[in-house]
Order: sequence, then C-alpha cells, then structure tokens
Amino acid sequence: MNKSVVLFSGGMDSYTLLMDLHLRGREVYAISFDYGQQHSKELTYAVAACEQNDIPHKIIDISECGLILTSALTGGGDSIVVPNRNMIMLSMACGYAISIGATEVLFGSNASDHAVFPDCRPSFIEKLNLALEHGNNEKITVEAPYSRMSKRDIAAEGKNMGLDYTKTWTCYRGGEAACGECESCKARKLALDIRD
Amino acid sequence: MNKSVVLFSGGMDSYTLLMDLHLRGREVYAISFDYGQQHSKELTYAVAACEQNDIPHKIIDISECGLILTSALTGGGDSIVVPNRNMIMLSMACGYAISIGATEVLFGSNASDHAVFPDCRPSFIEKLNLALEHGNNEKITVEAPYSRMSKRDIAAEGKNMGLDYTKTWTCYRGGEAACGECESCKARKLALDIRD
Repeated sequence: MNKSVVLFSGGMDSYTLLMDLHLRGREVYAISFDYGQQHSKELTYAVAACEQNDIPHKIIDISECGLILTSALTGGGDSIVVPNRNMIMLSMACGYAISIGATEVLFGSNASDHAVFPDCRPSFIEKLNLALEHGNNEKITVEAPYSRMSKRDIAAEGKNMGLDYTKTWTCYRGGEAACGECESCKARKLALDIRD
Repeated sequence: MNKSVVLFSGGMDSYTLLMDLHLRGREVYAISFDYGQQHSKELTYAVAACEQNDIPHKIIDISECGLILTSALTGGGDSIVVPNRNMIMLSMACGYAISIGATEVLFGSNASDHAVFPDCRPSFIEKLNLALEHGNNEKITVEAPYSRMSKRDIAAEGKNMGLDYTKTWTCYRGGEAACGECESCKARKLALDIRD
C-alpha cells in the first residue's frame, strides 16, 4: 500500500485530513513542526491525537528558524502571516516522505484561508509541485484536497466521520483555554456553528 | 541599498558568491544550516569567514530535520543526495529574507553539480521562484548566478578577486584534514588544479 505523510498542526483541518485517511485504512505518517509558534499548545493536541490512534508521528523542532521569521505568531511582527511558512514545512515534510518511500504529502489548507494566507492557495501548491518535480529524483507531490472547501464544509465532513473536535486546538494565543476572540478562534466558531 | 541574503555553506562556491557581493560593497546577510551533516566542520569555516569580514551571519539548527532525511551525508543512506535539501534551506532563507526586508536570496549552485543534484539545476530554481511568487505577498526571488558555470570557473573568478580558498571547507567526511578522496574533495581538487 502507498504510504502518505500528513502535515499535521493539531488543528481542525489537518486533524480531519489525517483521520479521514486513517479511518479508511491508509498507511499514514504524521509530521508536525515546532517553529516557535506562541500557540505551541497545538502540538500537545497533535501528539495526543496520534497516540490515541496509533499513528506514527514526528515533531520536528525548527524553533531556531522561527526566531528569524517575523510575524505576530512567532513574535516581532504584526501580521499573522509567517513569511514562507508553508513552503518551509512542506519542503521538510517532502524530504521526510522521500526518505520513507512515500510519494505524497497531504496538506489541509482550506478555501477560507486563501484571502489572508497566500501559501494556502491552490496556485501556490501547483507551482510548489513543479519545483518538487524538478528538484528531486523521486516522485513526490503535495496534495491539498480541502483547498477548495470552506472550514465549515470540512468540519461537516469530519462530523459525518464521527470526529470529536475537542481533540483539536485552534487558538493563536495558546492560553489555558481558547481566547474565543482571535482570527483563528472566530474561524473555528463559525465552522463548528458555536454561538457566543 | 538593497539587502541580499546568501545561503552560505562554508564551501568554495558560496564563499565566492558571498565575498563577491561583500567586496562590491553590497549589504549582505549570510545564513547557514546545521542539518546534521556529518561534515558540520564546514560551519566553523562559515563562522570564521563571516567574522573576519564583518558579515552578519545566522546559523540555524535544523538538525532534528536532518534525522528524518535519509542520505549518506546525514547517515542512514547510500546516496549523497539529501532529499529536497536545497528547497528546505532556500525556503527558510527566503522566509528570513522577507523578515529583514531583503528581496533576493543568492544561491551558489554550479553547473558541475547538475548531474548528481537535481536541486542545483536552473529548472528547479525557476520553478521554485514561481512557487515563491505565488506563496508570498512580498517580492522574493532566489538567484543562482553560478548555475551555468563550472566549479573551476568559479574558483578562477575567486582567485581574480584575491580569495584564499584555504578559508573554505569542502570534504564530506569532516575529519581533522580533508580526506582528498570523497566526491566533494575530488571536485575541489579539480577546481583548484591541485594534483595528488
């Protein structure tokens, strides 16, 4: 069977993607990155989800890289866009995939993110795949099956699978409880139909 | 003046590139990566070269990433090709460049490397630039000015600039002295016209 690597943040979308593949009996390998995000609490959710489902999981510490990236999420900036973040994480996930003989990396970007994050757009994934094809001897592609779906549609699919989203973390602030007010919390509440 | 980031391994080609810009009075920022290469000795040469020339220098520890990349250079493999290595390093260098307001990352790949390393080829850089354009709000490009020059031609240019290549490290084995026998040592000797 083909192996697949899933870029897993511990948030709703990548959890849905990971569990969808896992529940369909696919051989999946999760990979997460500690890039110095202030909401590194998402990683503890990622660990728990993989342990609970016996999914092999790597957490790669690239926090030194986070120190040189200016954004509101890593400190030192105002924008929630982390410069080139998805290319950084996907490039490493692809190197890992090649190393274990997988031919695809699954990426849970969604259509709701396109307006703010250029590195969630289908055109970015398309060009990245061209670079991967030219830069490697092995076949490796990034697939973003949710890239034209809204976060709400993804959550609806997850609920149909019986997923429990309390096992995911979304808030950018990474406090004891979710703040309920950051951009990410707002998007989560909209997707899960939670009213204040 | 425009800032430039140079991906600097501590080897001959990127040293030539870095020094060429520096000697022409350009504002350059060097960045190096510890990816668990067995020849991490190259990094001590990179540090020394930057200190000696007062060039700002970042060394980013991504050695945990190296642990999941199979190759002869990181351990666990036979090939000297590290899967997706240059996309990994260039993606972080580009994130750094954007963060400091630079618009280009200089990459010292040469024509002699094309046969073995797909991620040194001009076609890879061209596709990577498309992905960078689509994945970022800021303008950022990777330039590989030596990509159609042989290592020997680059060294000739460096000698014309008065560069001293004993300040660079090439050997893959990273022992006390260069082994003189690995692929990298052979290429160095050919470029510098050193006979055994």
